[in-house]
Amino acid sequence: MLDQVHQDALAALVGPGGLILDPADRAAYETPARYAGGAAAAVVRPATTAQVSAVVGYCVRYGLRFVPQGANTGLAEGSTPDASGTHLVLSLDRLAAPLEIDVADRTATVGAGVRLSALNAALEPHGLFLPIDLGADPTLGGMAATNTGGARFLRYGDMRRHVLGLEVVLADAAGTTLQLSHGLRKDNAAVALRQLFVGGCGAFGIITQVTVEVHHRPRQTAAALLVPRDIEAVLPLLQAFEVQAGSTLTAFEGLSKAAMTRAIDHVPSLSNPFAGGVPDYAVLVELTRTWAPREGEVSLDEVLQQIAGDLLERDEGLLVDALFGPVEKMWALRHSLSEGLRASGPVVGFDLSFRRRDLARFRREAVLMLEADFPDYALCDFGHVADGGVHFNLVGPVEPGRRAALREAVLTLAVDGFGASFSGEHGLGRAFQDAYDRFTPRLVQDYSAAVAAVFGTGSAAVRLGPARGN
Amino acid sequence: MLDQVHQDALAALVGPGGLILDPADRAAYETPARYAGGAAAAVVRPATTAQVSAVVGYCVRYGLRFVPQGANTGLAEGSTPDASGTHLVLSLDRLAAPLEIDVADRTATVGAGVRLSALNAALEPHGLFLPIDLGADPTLGGMAATNTGGARFLRYGDMRRHVLGLEVVLADAAGTTLQLSHGLRKDNAAVALRQLFVGGCGAFGIITQVTVEVHHRPRQTAAALLVPRDIEAVLPLLQAFEVQAGSTLTAFEGLSKAAMTRAIDHVPSLSNPFAGGVPDYAVLVELTRTWAPREGEVSLDEVLQQIAGDLLERDEGLLVDALFGPVEKMWALRHSLSEGLRASGPVVGFDLSFRRRDLARFRREAVLMLEADFPDYALCDFGHVADGGVHFNLVGPVEPGRRAALREAVLTLAVDGFGASFSGEHGLGRAFQDAYDRFTPRLVQDYSAAVAAVFGTGSAAVRLGPARGN
Repeated sequence: MLDQVHQDALAALVGPGGLILDPADRAAYETPARYAGGAAAAVVRPATTAQVSAVVGYCVRYGLRFVPQGANTGLAEGSTPDASGTHLVLSLDRLAAPLEIDVADRTATVGAGVRLSALNAALEPHGLFLPIDLGADPTLGGMAATNTGGARFLRYGDMRRHVLGLEVVLADAAGTTLQLSHGLRKDNAAVALRQLFVGGCGAFGIITQVTVEVHHRPRQTAAALLVPRDIEAVLPLLQAFEVQAGSTLTAFEGLSKAAMTRAIDHVPSLSNPFAGGVPDYAVLVELTRTWAPREGEVSLDEVLQQIAGDLLERDEGLLVDALFGPVEKMWALRHSLSEGLRASGPVVGFDLSFRRRDLARFRREAVLMLEADFPDYALCDFGHVADGGVHFNLVGPVEPGRRAALREAVLTLAVDGFGASFSGEHGLGRAFQDAYDRFTPRLVQDYSAAVAAVFGTGSAAVRLGPARGN
Repeated sequence: MLDQVHQDALAALVGPGGLILDPADRAAYETPARYAGGAAAAVVRPATTAQVSAVVGYCVRYGLRFVPQGANTGLAEGSTPDASGTHLVLSLDRLAAPLEIDVADRTATVGAGVRLSALNAALEPHGLFLPIDLGADPTLGGMAATNTGGARFLRYGDMRRHVLGLEVVLADAAGTTLQLSHGLRKDNAAVALRQLFVGGCGAFGIITQVTVEVHHRPRQTAAALLVPRDIEAVLPLLQAFEVQAGSTLTAFEGLSKAAMTRAIDHVPSLSNPFAGGVPDYAVLVELTRTWAPREGEVSLDEVLQQIAGDLLERDEGLLVDALFGPVEKMWALRHSLSEGLRASGPVVGFDLSFRRRDLARFRREAVLMLEADFPDYALCDFGHVADGGVHFNLVGPVEPGRRAALREAVLTLAVDGFGASFSGEHGLGRAFQDAYDRFTPRLVQDYSAAVAAVFGTGSAAVRLGPARGN
């Protein structure tokens, strides 16, 4: 519990309503979207950058450790306190201003606490959107801090590609505020300090304001479910779509039979789109165009059917079936996978990322390993094939020792065997600290910690290396 | 001149031919593509990463300052020594291996000394290319170190977007070698140390190997020269093309009348494409598709004509004329601009970058300022409108005091008045040191220097801040 003197001082800095001490009110801030909840000494909710600076400076001067938090939708335990009850949660959820849109510039400048849904609602009348597409509704500050990816990464990239400017508060005794670029698309007049804060997960400081590039919304969309010959055919199919659809290709999502079956069995609103039974593997492909249909133009649905039709007729037999239908219906299966898995049993999730050429071989080796050593777990993987990301999820026993052994086996095969990343798009947090300590090269840890130390004490949820004193 | 003991030691490290002392042989390494030449104590040309490490470690231990150099095509004096004759040139031009292409992965891993032309020649048979398009033929190491942009930035982005992995040698006593990622598209399992070296211009260390994402080559291209109503119409036209052409839009280059006229007058091979005289301003627009023409599909030329035709008929009158023709002919004018300027007189070049909404207003204010205070200079600007980049070039007197006053006036208006960058895509080097010292916020300088100091002593051609002891 926070000392009375700190309570009073922090309450004075953030005003009434800005300091949450009541355990019931704290709970939402203490409980991550995945993994067990922690305990906060208090939740502090500054409403302005100046208040963030004052709070952070106070915390550093008095040795109070804190964890910055946006919408608390992260999946790496990077935004919640540990169980000690000694850490503060520094919630940025009141930083909901500004929300400024510059249509001609195709940029938006928002407070770190602005939600993705709020930004997109404000952009919609202008025909614009931030195309980073994911299941949750995070804040823009959280998205920048974790370098969010998502299902349309292959076309639009990650947050790093969109962040054109940041305002940050450093975890030092002064709560130093830094403006790192102002929304220029091109700027090589200074070194890339800003890039450290993108994906930095609070280790370098707290993001208080973000300028992002936004895009024109699609005005035409077509989608299909493809059935490849086998898992080895997926990458050649992707290459064919990359050429034939070019940059109109906006999604290419792999779905395993086990993941699809669980969604179909456990999500009542979902019907089985496959007449002939669920295939071993499927790919959801999506094409979009930013323009309205033009006279004389082949429709996007027809283009998709042409491309798939040509592939179905080819001798190699890479593609064995293709289902066309309304876009929402095609995506419904993909969007139900996580819910289906959770409803079917306890999930051990891995957010792995590979060189995409390694995806099929890793899966083959992993399946053999799992069959031999972990037959009690069912592999229900799906992923973003084009960028090498795999949500390598397993459903099975909750016994901690067994789970730890499974985690160890999967990560060792992926990271040591294939040079994979153990956190493709979920960022760093307490949940990955053991993997970080074990798999990140010691030299990289040392330099990361030394660079972070230049900026201050950082977040209590991420420890970058042994050289760092926190 | 380099002491005999250092000569012997460095020659032993890099072998015969690896150390150049002869003034005639040194000249090409001492003379930048723009600005006056410097003088090197010697040129050291290691042939492997291990040799780079040995040389750099030796230099740091004995206090020899050095400047890393790729193809020496940079425009910021970042790869050549000053006039003191005390700095070594550390040329990476012998690091021409590996040159490995992974077609399925759409990546290439190359030595820092591999030229862009060599990479593209190796990629061409696979239908791939690195789409960063610029006038020179730099090395991949130099492109990464300066975060090169180019004429197709609006579609493909800069080097930062393409670099998936780096091997670097730090400027410390051990010549520490770091591998920063291995070619994953998504990796949030570590903080973004790699990003510091992209655009770091040698301040953090020396890039010895690069893994880049590459793209499918266009199989259809269409181009046109558009005549906008006036400079204010350019941005609305860009917005219309962004919607109507979507991601098939690969270039949108602005050309001023003065720049075009000088090219037409001074480049013998170039003919005037405008029947009715050179307009006040023109835009080169390019669309591309990665697929071969398909049956029933409207050709890309027709699409471009449709979009331009609709704009010509619109009431707003944003577009007053459009010229269609072979792609090479359309680009010939754009590609001749620099040559035309140089042939017409001495050039003062500025590589500015703006929020694109500010481009027209800056130009208007700059024209008024130039007419009032610098009527002896002719503005011959052209630029990458879509990403806010302007090559704000002026032709006029070479008198140093007058040039310095002009430079001061333009940069003050651009940077102080509009938050522009004084180096949009040319990186940092000795030529911009005064601008860096003056315009980069002191706090940003301090943190940049402190972060660089974590990694070592860095390049002698870039000084990031007063806190740094070099």
